[in-house]
Order: sequence, then structure tokens, then C-alpha cells
Amino acid sequence: MKVAVVGGSGYVGGELLRLLLRHPDVEVVQVTSDSMADKPLGRAHPNLRKVTSLTFTPHAELRAADATFVATPHGESMGRMPQLLETNGFVVDLSADFRLKDPAEYAAYYPTAHAHPELLAESVYGLPELHRSEIRTARLIAVPGCVATATILALKPLVDHHLVDGRPVVVDAKSGSSASGQDAGPAGRHAERSGVMRAYAPTGHRHTAEVEQETGTPVALSCHAVEAVRGVLATVHAFAARPVEEKELWRTYRTAYGEEPFVRVVHEKDGLHREPEPKILAGTNYCDVGFAADRHVPRVVALAALDNLMKGAAGNAVQCYNVRRGLPEPTGLEFLGLHPI
Amino acid sequence: MKVAVVGGSGYVGGELLRLLLRHPDVEVVQVTSDSMADKPLGRAHPNLRKVTSLTFTPHAELRAADATFVATPHGESMGRMPQLLETNGFVVDLSADFRLKDPAEYAAYYPTAHAHPELLAESVYGLPELHRSEIRTARLIAVPGCVATATILALKPLVDHHLVDGRPVVVDAKSGSSASGQDAGPAGRHAERSGVMRAYAPTGHRHTAEVEQETGTPVALSCHAVEAVRGVLATVHAFAARPVEEKELWRTYRTAYGEEPFVRVVHEKDGLHREPEPKILAGTNYCDVGFAADRHVPRVVALAALDNLMKGAAGNAVQCYNVRRGLPEPTGLEFLGLHPI
Amino acid sequence: MKVAVVGGSGYVGGELLRLLLRHPDVEVVQVTSDSMADKPLGRAHPNLRKVTSLTFTPHAELRAADATFVATPHGESMGRMPQLLETNGFVVDLSADFRLKDPAEYAAYYPTAHAHPELLAESVYGLPELHRSEIRTARLIAVPGCVATATILALKPLVDHHLVDGRPVVVDAKSGSSASGQDAGPAGRHAERSGVMRAYAPTGHRHTAEVEQETGTPVALSCHAVEAVRGVLATVHAFAARPVEEKELWRTYRTAYGEEPFVRVVHEKDGLHREPEPKILAGTNYCDVGFAADRHVPRVVALAALDNLMKGAAGNAVQCYNVRRGLPEPTGLEFLGLHPI
Amino acid sequence: MKVAVVGGSGYVGGELLRLLLRHPDVEVVQVTSDSMADKPLGRAHPNLRKVTSLTFTPHAELRAADATFVATPHGESMGRMPQLLETNGFVVDLSADFRLKDPAEYAAYYPTAHAHPELLAESVYGLPELHRSEIRTARLIAVPGCVATATILALKPLVDHHLVDGRPVVVDAKSGSSASGQDAGPAGRHAERSGVMRAYAPTGHRHTAEVEQETGTPVALSCHAVEAVRGVLATVHAFAARPVEEKELWRTYRTAYGEEPFVRVVHEKDGLHREPEPKILAGTNYCDVGFAADRHVPRVVALAALDNLMKGAAGNAVQCYNVRRGLPEPTGLEFLGLHPI
Repeated sequence: MKVAVVGGSGYVGGELLRLLLRHPDVEVVQVTSDSMADKPLGRAHPNLRKVTSLTFTPHAELRAADATFVATPHGESMGRMPQLLETNGFVVDLSADFRLKDPAEYAAYYPTAHAHPELLAESVYGLPELHRSEIRTARLIAVPGCVATATILALKPLVDHHLVDGRPVVVDAKSGSSASGQDAGPAGRHAERSGVMRAYAPTGHRHTAEVEQETGTPVALSCHAVEAVRGVLATVHAFAARPVEEKELWRTYRTAYGEEPFVRVVHEKDGLHREPEPKILAGTNYCDVGFAADRHVPRVVALAALDNLMKGAAGNAVQCYNVRRGLPEPTGLEFLGLHPI
Repeated sequence: MKVAVVGGSGYVGGELLRLLLRHPDVEVVQVTSDSMADKPLGRAHPNLRKVTSLTFTPHAELRAADATFVATPHGESMGRMPQLLETNGFVVDLSADFRLKDPAEYAAYYPTAHAHPELLAESVYGLPELHRSEIRTARLIAVPGCVATATILALKPLVDHHLVDGRPVVVDAKSGSSASGQDAGPAGRHAERSGVMRAYAPTGHRHTAEVEQETGTPVALSCHAVEAVRGVLATVHAFAARPVEEKELWRTYRTAYGEEPFVRVVHEKDGLHREPEPKILAGTNYCDVGFAADRHVPRVVALAALDNLMKGAAGNAVQCYNVRRGLPEPTGLEFLGLHPI
Repeated sequence: MKVAVVGGSGYVGGELLRLLLRHPDVEVVQVTSDSMADKPLGRAHPNLRKVTSLTFTPHAELRAADATFVATPHGESMGRMPQLLETNGFVVDLSADFRLKDPAEYAAYYPTAHAHPELLAESVYGLPELHRSEIRTARLIAVPGCVATATILALKPLVDHHLVDGRPVVVDAKSGSSASGQDAGPAGRHAERSGVMRAYAPTGHRHTAEVEQETGTPVALSCHAVEAVRGVLATVHAFAARPVEEKELWRTYRTAYGEEPFVRVVHEKDGLHREPEPKILAGTNYCDVGFAADRHVPRVVALAALDNLMKGAAGNAVQCYNVRRGLPEPTGLEFLGLHPI
Repeated sequence: MKVAVVGGSGYVGGELLRLLLRHPDVEVVQVTSDSMADKPLGRAHPNLRKVTSLTFTPHAELRAADATFVATPHGESMGRMPQLLETNGFVVDLSADFRLKDPAEYAAYYPTAHAHPELLAESVYGLPELHRSEIRTARLIAVPGCVATATILALKPLVDHHLVDGRPVVVDAKSGSSASGQDAGPAGRHAERSGVMRAYAPTGHRHTAEVEQETGTPVALSCHAVEAVRGVLATVHAFAARPVEEKELWRTYRTAYGEEPFVRVVHEKDGLHREPEPKILAGTNYCDVGFAADRHVPRVVALAALDNLMKGAAGNAVQCYNVRRGLPEPTGLEFLGLHPI
């Protein structure tokens, strides 16, 4: 397939290119970026030096393709989507523009009204674990947000098994610095971010809407910046409808994810790595999910870890591509991750 | 005052010594440590090189003193406390041994039964913000745990003002590596800890008992290790009994802490540092407290940050000493903290 | 003394203010910054919140003072210096503008010709260990660069004792992220800087000129960025004129620094901290100096560590102020440093 | 090939297993470790969970194999090597035991005399860039040390082109925490290692002997620990025999490495990543080599970066295996590395 990448100079774009350049079903034919136009890909992504001779082209020079990945900032893909869908094959959009079904929700969390609300019904929320069959035939796939992905994968099985009592579920998420992209501003300076524990969104985080849409449960989400380059750890504190045993949680998660290639249930009795940790997932497409049953108060703690640039963005986008193309889902996503890192 | 430090070779002991060696009311006359016996203090604490010529003495050679700080591992001070109280002036104990009033609670969270439950009623929970007047005359002061201190200071005003609806309060705490002490084992190795986000106690953390004792409210506590050497950030997610406005939260916290020398209410509209962050508190005795009112669900998010070795241990111990001695509380605790760090 | 700070919103300015606001001989009467004009100091420096009610004033509104610290970017203080010297007492300049005696050297390393070369002869290189007596009466004190300070303090005693063979001395310096200031650009992003080992100036570093001026020896300097917020470690590799024993190096450094309040000779046989390390010096004005005699080739390795914002900038500036004012040099510089940090 | 791994529970063993488990020419049939005997591989290496059902076996139960990798601590493989060579195919030894040709050099740098000096002549120094043809037929391949590999690859071309003046070459190396292995002791604690710049071997580093053996040039090596988990950056300061231009350095390195699959010459005029950096090489088998010609003194600065667990150990071992087996050298080593990380 001849594949185009729109907006390829950011962190997500870089990961996408790393994956696509080695993907057996993909030929990357163009990569757009206005800020890096005419420069080699390796200038933005030093790990791609000597791997490809492609250069960035301006957005305006985008040509037709068999499939297109869009990795532009939120709000930028909305306007051009009808045109893209006409000329550029199926579209995998990594921005937030087409994730929410309800335009009112979009307007509540994002700064402008939606430019093409008529496309929201058609777009598919690109989480294969929930929407695999719709992705197979989708024209427009909206890749979920990184915090939303972790939260949904931890929470959904609890909801499906009626383990949550209906009150808002508290989600306390921690994320690394690449989650804010290259333009994090002064807050992204090393001296400000190194060793930080900072509540950057104690309330009002945008992924709230995605999580509630996909789980059907009210969510109280708080997001923190911690020192790490990659990774999200979502700690889901769910008040239980009734006493829950660990055994039931094991069963719940195994039922949900036993066949999933990229969700691993991690809950060990000893060793250093008993519950999910994003650190050892860097570069992989895994979301590790774990849990604990609280004996002190009626609470289930569910934990999900992922690499925000991989299962939280580019890796999941490639998984969606594989689903859409009928390929084995791990195609191009075989990297096992490093330890230590 | 001639002051002894029992167990002075650990991280908490080092901070205690840094403070006491420059404290105008204190003459440090002996510092015990079996593992470092006969070695100069600077061998364990390189920042104290050339500051003092004291050497460590074995525990068994402890002599009488006017006041004594105990910084031994949990469980080690219990047995010797009656003897200490007889010969060594008033005692400021930084271990967990005398924090809990109820021996049953102690047995529920710690591995053995309490050796001297008869002393629990007498010991004072050493949080000046809550127990200042009792500390003034105490013979035995039990310095709170670091996560407990942060959580209590964030949560107590909400409870006092009847803003919490009675359901368990979810507390999601993040802490740096020095909180596990020098003997953290393999989990404390740099390669394992660097960049980590790890739920090391998703349920069952010991500080739960302290927080419930001091706030009178059930708590669902989960603790995470994140990359940082010093610091605790407690994120308190409290379901509100009724809709709460930010203005009321401002008033609540200002009422509670307006006169406190070491609790600052931090909640700003712009800038990089809008809510409490432990990073800029390293080396100080401050606990910064902040908050957010959630408009989406009836929730108050309260945030407290501190340096786990200072307001979470040694600094707070010195503040207790100052209270006990009738000195201005900031005596010896004037350091403002570094930025950047 | 009524003291003004020109350019107080950067990292160096913040440290300077932290020190001056608690300095017993100083009343800070004004702090200028165009970018932060009218905002409280605590907006730029969160550790100063609630410590002072001062706000920044625009540069143009600078008024007279008894003494003035200048912490503007390199090149900005040159032009206004004659005016400052006339109205604002003695001046302690933390920029590079008046460090070099030879205008040709200045032009070789900096982008423009010097605006006031006639002042270069009068300005005193503000390293008390080398120029204490001149500083006592100076009208214009030029505070050295951080890498230069570390290198000079490690190298000068070797030169003075004729231990260096005359060939260029190799200096390999490592520095933390605050050394590049707040405006480090994309290279200062957390994701780019975290865990980095980067030769940012393999040749041509500006501090070369300062070191050669002060030591009278040719220097081959290479500078690296490593992960740390504060700190410089200079590793000086000097080819020895003749075989050198450790004993002679001990004697050399003790002779040089035995009476110095802020230079400690650190060279231990065991323990974790045998040679100088910047980490444990954060916030202090110490420069720790160490050494090793190579038995394999005729080489002396000299090591110097300091906090680039303290002994490498603001702390040293305050030390110069103390010398100039006839105060004990440690005045306002008593902080011992944290361990661990 | 049926492959055994002796000593598979350390960091190097973990990386080796990660690579071998996905290597198309390899079937891992046994992995020994006494400390982890009978436990699944994933207990030591969490990134291998669910990838293999192998468990560790005790060293004593090692069985025959077609090829064997040895990743035990230095000194442990010497004694058993004759036996291994007899029963276990060709051996790739990642310890230091068979790197040095001269038993006297071995005794000078290591604590005991060599147990089997008669094997030293036969063993091949496993750096394909220097010894490719000997590796093809070797029975015993000794994988170089990580600092040695970086230094040799930076320095050898300068020596070969007679650019070095014969005086000792100063090498200033920086390395991450995994280079000291899992048993780094107290110096490896996160709180001690985080943000550190520490000269852990200012003189006397063992890799000196390897570098001198392979380059034929005297070397003055100093090694520093810096904050990073993986990576070595070797800064080689070589006094030049005559004035050298950048153009000549380009030519020198391109001649040396133009055809090498895992050595890239990196020296760019702009961008963030102008010279080699280990950070972006994590998980890859690349050694990036760069350089600068000093115009100030007759010096060439050569820089080499690599991942100490990959090109500095396990990755290079697999490259040697590929050479020995006549496979394309990148087999199983295709990972491009992550950015950011």
C-alpha cells in the first residue's frame, strides 16, 4: 500500500514513521510537515538517519495515496477530512478531532465547534479491543488518546462484569513528558520537568469524554506529569458494587483480554514487577493491565500501563491499520521492549 | 540542650543531623549507628564532611541526654522506649512505633504485636498543625509518616468543614526514592527506579491507619513510586457532600492554615507552578496544599506536596522539638528551597 | 546596603534573589526584568512565594543603589556599564562581558566587538581564591563562568607548583541543564535532555579564554551536557612534567586551599563519595576539588565540582560582595547541601 | 542452531535472550543461572513475560549445545572454558576473561592470575570491525568491554591514518548505570545515582589494556558515571601529529566505516543531534562515531556512542554470532531505536 503521513515531524509522527518504514505491507510515499519542509526525515528523527532518503514535503503538496495517517495537532485535521477521505484512501487520524460521537461533548472539551460533525457518526473509535469489527471496514479511524486508552482498557471489563457501583470512578493518571508533544513550552524544559510530580489537570481533562463515551460510566479524572519520557500509568479507583475477590478480577480480565495480542494481564505475587509499569513497555504496543482488590474499603484498583507514543498513539494506529488491512495484528509491532531502560 | 540521635546513618538521620548541627538551641552530643560505628559522620553523609568531628557510636553505648531523636527502622525503638524515656529526656521518635493509638490497628498493619502498648496513650502524634498544644508538654512525640502528613494536611480541613460526603476518600500518593530508605533492595536500583511509575502499594499501605486516626474518615489509599529522590505528592479525591465552589475551598484552607508557618496554600491561575509540587520544596519544611473543585462530578481534588525527608520526617521532627522547647517554630528551618532543582 | 538586581527573572537571578533576600547586610530595593515587569518575584521563582512582596520593574526604571548585581544575558550589560558605575554603587556583573582583559580575546569568542574595552583593565575577575585583594576595592567585579571556575580551581595549583609539562591541558567538562539558562530552546526540552550525554561544545567553548587568562596555560576544552539540573564537573587531564605522587598532590591542594572557606579538597580511600561530585553541592557555594595520579602514563587527573548557579554564578557573586564589603565570606552562604538529592 | 546461554539472569543476559529468542537462526535450548534456578525467564526479565516458557537451570546442569553464549561475571568463565569448548560448540564469551592476549596484562588489571593462559592466543577479540575474518572461524570469541568498544572505534582510524602524535591519548568516558550490572551495591541506589556526575575510575580502568592492545597506542583513560540507564559516550582527545582539517577526518572515518553495517559516522552542521549520543541508540547495535578538529590547539576530538548492553555487549555478541555463522550481520539486530526516549 502506498501510504502518506500528514504531519510527520512531531514525536508521534516520528514513531509512526519508525514503524511504517519497516512495515512489510507499507510503502511510505510522502510525509508532510510545513516546519521541516524539504529537510530529510532524519533531521527531525535522528533514529531514522540512513534508514530512508525521504524528505518532508509541505502540507499543500500532499498527493493521493492508498491510505493516510494524520498526526497533526488537535483541530487541524477536521477541516481537510472530507477532501482527504475522497483522495487519500482510508484515514487513520491520530488527533482528537473524530473521537467523540457527540458534537456537544466535543464543544465542551475543545476550543471550537466541530467543523464536520456529519462525519462523527461514521468515524470509528480506533481501539481494536472494543471496535475490531467496525475498524475492518472503516473509512475514518480515530485513534484514542493515550490516557483514555489506558483508562478504558483497565475499566471496561469491570463495567462489563457489573463490578462498579455506578458512582463516578476516580482515575488518577500519570504521564511522561513526550505526552505533551514537542511544544510543551516552558513547562517542558528539562529543569522544570526533571523529577517533577505535578497535577497538570486536576480536573477537566479532555480524555474524560472519551472514557465516558466508551465505558458508559461517569469518570472523575485527574492527570499528573511525572519524570519519564514515555508512558502512561492509569490508576483506576472504582467503588465496587459488592465485595470482590482477586480471583474474580483475574477471571474478569482474562475473559476480556485472553485472546488479545497486545493486552497482557500482569498481577504477580513476587518479583520487582508485580503490576503494570510503563517503563518496560517503551517502544512496544503492549498495554499491561493489573488490579488489586481492596480489603479495607469496597474498592477495586485497576492499573493500566502503556507507552503513550505506541499503544497510546502510533503503535495503536498501526494495529488499526493491520486490522483494516486484514493482516495479523502484530505485523510491524514485534518489538519486545527493553529491560532495563 | 544536649541532644542524642539514635540511628543516625540513614537518610532521615542524615537530614536530622544537617538540621541539628546548625540549630542554635542544640548541641549534638552523640549519634549512634551500629553499621557505621567509629566512622565520622561525613562518611555516611558527605554533605557533613568538615562540618563536624563527631563519629558514630554503637547503639549499646548510648548515654544520657536532655532530648533524644530516634531514627531507627520501624519496630526497633519500641523495646527500648521505656528506658529511653527514663534517661534521655523527651523523645522524638521518627519511626512508626508510637503513631497509632490503638494496638489493634498497630497489629493490623505491622508484623508484630506492640511491645509497649501502655505508652501509646501517652505518645503524641507529632503534627504541630493538629496537636501543637499536646506537643508542648509531651514526653514522647511520634513523628508522622510522610504520606500520612501530606494526606492529613490536605484532607483534614475538608472533613472539618463537612465538605466530604462520608464515603471513603480516595488518596493516590506518589513518592520519590528516598522514601524507601537506603535499604530499598533491588527495587531501589537506579536502573529499576529511573523513570518509573510503579504502584508499589495499590492497597494496604500502612499510613492508611494514621490518616484515618487523625481525620476520622475512611480512606482508600494507593501509593506509587515515581522518579524523584525526594518528595511526596498526595492527590486526595474526595466526593463532596454538596456542590463546592473554589471560593469556599480557598476559605477553608486559609482558615486552617493562614497562621501556620509551614503550610502554604498554593492555587494559582497561571504560571508554571499553579498547584503544589514537591520538587521545589526539597530541603524545606513546607507542606504546600492546593485544590480544585470538579464541575463535572461532585468531587474536590486536594493536593499536598512535601519533602519526605523534611516535613515528612526530619524537618517536622525539628519543628516538634521547637514547639516542645517553646522556640519559634522556624528555628533552624529557614531554608527556602531551590529553583530550579 | 540598598541593592539592585538587574535582570532578575532567569535562573541565576532567582538564586541571587534567594540569597540576597536573606542576607543580613542587604536590602533588595529593586529587581528589573522586562519580560516579567510588574509581576511578583514568586511568579518567576516559586521558592520565593510569600517570602517577599517585591515585583519586577522594567529595566528602564532602574534607580540608584548602593550596589548592583547584573544578571542579564551576555552582551547586554556592556553598553550600560559606564552609566551603572556612575549611579549604582559597585557592580557585580554575572555576565561574560567584563571577564576577559584582552579585547581581542573577547572578539575571538563573542559575536561582537567589545563596547567598552577601556573598562576591561579596571574590572576584576571575581574569583576570590585568586583575586581577593583586588576585589576588596573593586568598582566592577566580573563573576567567572561556571566551567571556568571549576577548571581554574582544579588546574591553577598544578600550574603554580610546576607540575604541568607545558603541553595543552585537556579539560573534559560535564554540566547540568540549568547551565544553559531558561532559553535553551529545543535542546532543553525534557525529552531531549533527559538521560543525555551530549558533546555540545567538543571544541571552541568560550570559557577556554577565561581559563587560559587565569592559569597562563594552554587549554583544550570540551563540554558535555549530561542529565542533571545543576552542577558542573570538570575533569582536568594534565600531562605531568615529572612523576607525581598522590602525597605531593595532597600537599599542593592543601597549600592552595587549606584556608579557603569554599574550596574543599576531597579525595577519599573508601565510601561512595571519594572524589568531588556536584550533586551533593546543589544549593551550596562549595567547589570540591580532588585528584588522582596516574601510574600508567605521566598524567594528573584533577577534578572540580560545583553548583553552576552557586559557586558557578550567584553564590560566588555573593561571596565577592562579602569580600568587597569586608564581611565574613560565608555570610548568607551557610547552606550545607542535601544528601540524598 | 541449538544455543545455550550460561549466566542469563543479569542485564546482559536479559538483552542477549531478548535478541536470541527472536533470532531466526537460533533456538535457545537452555539458560543457566544459579540464583534464579527453576524460575521462568520473565521473572528476571519482565519484557520476556509471555514470550517464552523457558525456565533457568542451575549452572551444573548445563548440557551440550551447538553454540554457547557466556554472560557470567568476570573471572567465572575462565575455569570452565576448556570443558565448554569441548562440549558446547563455539563459545561467545561476554566476560573479560579472554580479551587480553598477554597474561601479564590480565594479571595487571584483574585480581587473579589467568586460569588458562594457553587459550588466550586462540581466542579472538570479538570486534567484527577489526577482526571479522578471524571471527568467521573462531572457536572462542571474547566480546569486548563497552568502554573499550567505543574508544577503539573512535580512535583506531586516527591511529591507522597516522593522525595521532604518539603521546598518550586522553579518553574521557561517561557511562550509564546498567554498565555496572545488577550488583552495583550502594553506589547503584537510585538516590545515589540519580543526576550524578562521578569519576568512578579517574585512573586505572581495566579497559585501558584492551584499547592499547587493539590500537597499539598508549591511552590515559578516565571513566565517569552519569545519569542514564544505558549508554557509553567516549570522548577521545588525541593530540595531532600535524594540523588536521575536518575534511580529512570525514575521509578517515568514511574510509574506515563506510561499509560497516553498525558504525555510522555522525557529524552534522545543525539540528539537535550533531554528534553521537548514546540516548537514541538504546536497544540498537549501532556505534555512532563523530569528531571535531580543534583550531585552538593541535587536537582531534573523536566521539563514539553506543548502548553498553548492545554494541557494548549482547548486540555485538549476536553480531559476532552472525559473522561466525555466515549470516547477514544485521540478522536479529534490526531495531532502529526510539526517539524520544
